[in-house]
Amino acid sequence: MPKQLFHHLNKFISVSEDEFYNMLPYFEQVCLKKKEILVSAGSLCTHHHFVLEGCLHLYFITDKGVERTVQFAIENWWMTDNLAFHNQTITDFSIQAVEPTKLLSISYEKQEQLLQEFPQLEKYLRSIYQISYGASLVKMRYLLDFSKEEMYFHFTEQFPEFAQRVPQYLIASFLGLTPEYVSEIRAKKRS
Amino acid sequence: MPKQLFHHLNKFISVSEDEFYNMLPYFEQVCLKKKEILVSAGSLCTHHHFVLEGCLHLYFITDKGVERTVQFAIENWWMTDNLAFHNQTITDFSIQAVEPTKLLSISYEKQEQLLQEFPQLEKYLRSIYQISYGASLVKMRYLLDFSKEEMYFHFTEQFPEFAQRVPQYLIASFLGLTPEYVSEIRAKKRS
Repeated sequence: MPKQLFHHLNKFISVSEDEFYNMLPYFEQVCLKKKEILVSAGSLCTHHHFVLEGCLHLYFITDKGVERTVQFAIENWWMTDNLAFHNQTITDFSIQAVEPTKLLSISYEKQEQLLQEFPQLEKYLRSIYQISYGASLVKMRYLLDFSKEEMYFHFTEQFPEFAQRVPQYLIASFLGLTPEYVSEIRAKKRS
Repeated sequence: MPKQLFHHLNKFISVSEDEFYNMLPYFEQVCLKKKEILVSAGSLCTHHHFVLEGCLHLYFITDKGVERTVQFAIENWWMTDNLAFHNQTITDFSIQAVEPTKLLSISYEKQEQLLQEFPQLEKYLRSIYQISYGASLVKMRYLLDFSKEEMYFHFTEQFPEFAQRVPQYLIASFLGLTPEYVSEIRAKKRS
């Protein structure tokens, strides 16, 4: 199973099997049930998580008590509150499993040690972040450009497997819509 | 002037003056007049830009012909369309100088060569991207959580110098507001 990280590393850098086996002890494997909370808002942001199987979402609760998803992570995605992780501070976000989920998790200290022992991983993480940051600028564009209805159909057309897999109310939350609004525009499209 | 990049590098990694002088030839220094266009939407995303002095904004034009700012970069910030830069594809964004601006710009090929010659820079870029990506998740939270009025006052209170420096219509564009709306809520607050 952790072999998945090995393959993912080798998409960006060159890591031998031997090196990979020496990297693995820095990680802990974590199994979550569906809807299990991995990180609670208000706690210290200690870990960076790589999804082996399943799906996580990063969310916050608005003043009005509504849950709003900011990011999803499926297989081969990394997830944490990156700013709180970088600064080793309290996070305002929670992370929850959308499905039964298996992770490789690494603490801030262990990640620092791992990067010191295997500096070639800096390039891997730089590439991952470059892509994630780039994608977030594109999402920002959609948030500023598209109507709510366009957002929903653009998202479900661009990521059909994802839209099938994740509950509608979470997709609505990710796009800043209410579940009722999503039901309405889906019904309108069908008719 | 390029010394500023030297100091910025040394906030994250350890670079000697000698090493820095060997890095500099990879960059070109670019001077822009106020409102000069650096990158046009529809062109190949070839360069990564570090701001020595001044201010850039990254924006797109909506279907209705409205300019929308997605990101600003002031001194010590890097800017490009990161996804298009990573994939070496056409960008949908334009970059323009908000003020007279001085940059150090590096092409994709030169950046790859630079990172090969000075692999310690991977850690620098990884840190920069980790912070930028983290900050974009926080901005996404504000976009989903705050009312338009809250967005504006939160932004101007959190970044007072920035709000002073950048024209109101660009701040409005960055927050997804119309300039008329911003005038209205500012007048309301004063009264």
